Amino acid sequence: MAYPDHVLIKEVGPRDGLQNEKSFLPTEKKVEWINELSESGLNYIEITSFVNPKWIPALADCYEVATQIKRKPGVTYAALVPNMKGLEKAMEADVDEVAVFMSASDTHSKKNINKTIDETLPVLSETVREARSAGKKVRGYLSTVFGCPYEGDVSGEEVLRITDRLLEMGVYEVSLGDTIGVGNPVQVETSLNHWTSRINPEYLALHFHNTRGMALANTLVGLKAGIHTYDGALGGLGGCPYAKGASGNVATDDLVYMLHEMGIQTGADLSRLAQAGRFIEEALGKPLDSHYMEVIRAGE
Amino acid sequence: MAYPDHVLIKEVGPRDGLQNEKSFLPTEKKVEWINELSESGLNYIEITSFVNPKWIPALADCYEVATQIKRKPGVTYAALVPNMKGLEKAMEADVDEVAVFMSASDTHSKKNINKTIDETLPVLSETVREARSAGKKVRGYLSTVFGCPYEGDVSGEEVLRITDRLLEMGVYEVSLGDTIGVGNPVQVETSLNHWTSRINPEYLALHFHNTRGMALANTLVGLKAGIHTYDGALGGLGGCPYAKGASGNVATDDLVYMLHEMGIQTGADLSRLAQAGRFIEEALGKPLDSHYMEVIRAGE
Repeated sequence: MAYPDHVLIKEVGPRDGLQNEKSFLPTEKKVEWINELSESGLNYIEITSFVNPKWIPALADCYEVATQIKRKPGVTYAALVPNMKGLEKAMEADVDEVAVFMSASDTHSKKNINKTIDETLPVLSETVREARSAGKKVRGYLSTVFGCPYEGDVSGEEVLRITDRLLEMGVYEVSLGDTIGVGNPVQVETSLNHWTSRINPEYLALHFHNTRGMALANTLVGLKAGIHTYDGALGGLGGCPYAKGASGNVATDDLVYMLHEMGIQTGADLSRLAQAGRFIEEALGKPLDSHYMEVIRAGE
Repeated sequence: MAYPDHVLIKEVGPRDGLQNEKSFLPTEKKVEWINELSESGLNYIEITSFVNPKWIPALADCYEVATQIKRKPGVTYAALVPNMKGLEKAMEADVDEVAVFMSASDTHSKKNINKTIDETLPVLSETVREARSAGKKVRGYLSTVFGCPYEGDVSGEEVLRITDRLLEMGVYEVSLGDTIGVGNPVQVETSLNHWTSRINPEYLALHFHNTRGMALANTLVGLKAGIHTYDGALGGLGGCPYAKGASGNVATDDLVYMLHEMGIQTGADLSRLAQAGRFIEEALGKPLDSHYMEVIRAGE
């Protein structure tokens, strides 16, 4: 299959990136960063998570962030919601769309949200129904699709079963997450061939982590499998707390750089992404770990 | 084209990695590191460069390193030689094989060795002839094949012309180098399709730098193009002096990890590579920049 002309990048840095930060980034810094991202040509930004602040204190200001950002026409501002309670708060803040999430591994699911897969499905079903009846589109995240930190291998049939269920609920797209960055190109190719033989790739997105450096290689495989939507976090934010660079999301800037060099459009402006990168580096007081930001620093 | 069952990794860390280090690594540390690498299952190690120490002071002890290492049967110990003078010293030290190098860009060539491409060819021709008449195999490096820091684009026809000339001289393999890490997967695929339509891919190797994070993605493309020999430097040594990680060789350990996960054999033992990685981290007093070493540190 040929590469597509255009790829949609979904920026998850303000949610998936910041949720792992140990220190609380002040609300005005979050707002200003999202405003910077809005000017970078990205047209989808997941801005926060409406989850109990007991679980993710770093995003306790979800409502304030969602209501204080400047919304740029043409940009979709999404937020993660774990359940009805989160959805209600997200609706109050009037986000453009919401995302629900679950795991493809029972053990990971129980450790993460204290529910099994089959206990989670009805919770999400209710949430998706309610969101849609209020006119909101809903995205789904399915994590650990290429491997679980507790169980190791994850069943491809189980990934299919859950993806089918999420789509049946009314989710418009399922973002398949390599949560711990263990998927290798052969596995990703084999899995995607399996999954896309039963599910239209237009309903799938890929969410890679670059833990072992394979995210861009896996992106090539995803493109060849006909998947045209990719999640990224600016500068590879979302790293493991134990080691710099050890488990962040694939860096949006590295992803955009590669795609543009390949002649694939994303709509993003790399120099504006770098500007947003420098802003968050300063706000967090540490350098971002992406190759693109490192190359820029080397040239300065 | 399907992936191969086996890939040959050529470790260039002791030469291409260490030549960029600012502080002089003591000879006994170099020797001990190479001895560690010899026990990792790698069967090709480029140990040093017999170049005027005025140009690369970090490798001024090339003769001592070559004569003091413990040579493990089955491992090929190679050294870079720029000309007849370097070759003579390398022959005295009885390295197993030698490598000659040149650039595919005239400006890079002049800045690097003060000779144009066409001035370099006869120098290498003489060196290759002499080495082969003494029974030594000779490898060729061609740098900047996917882009030049001074000229930008590099002509694919010029790469072919020089590669042909090197093979005609008697070089058994040309390692095509993405010296500044700018090659993208579409460019690499297009270029390799062009080059392998005229040159048997068995005579080609790929030498990627991970400056912009695309080295493993480009490796996938190389494998699909039928190229089965890849250069790497343990831990991604060989970085730019200005910024951590900004222009190192692709990390041997990340390359081996991905290949093994893909079911492709290399003969290398990752735990022994990690041991050699920890040794050189301690000797240099800094952490290595590869994903594999970072994952190991995160788990410790």
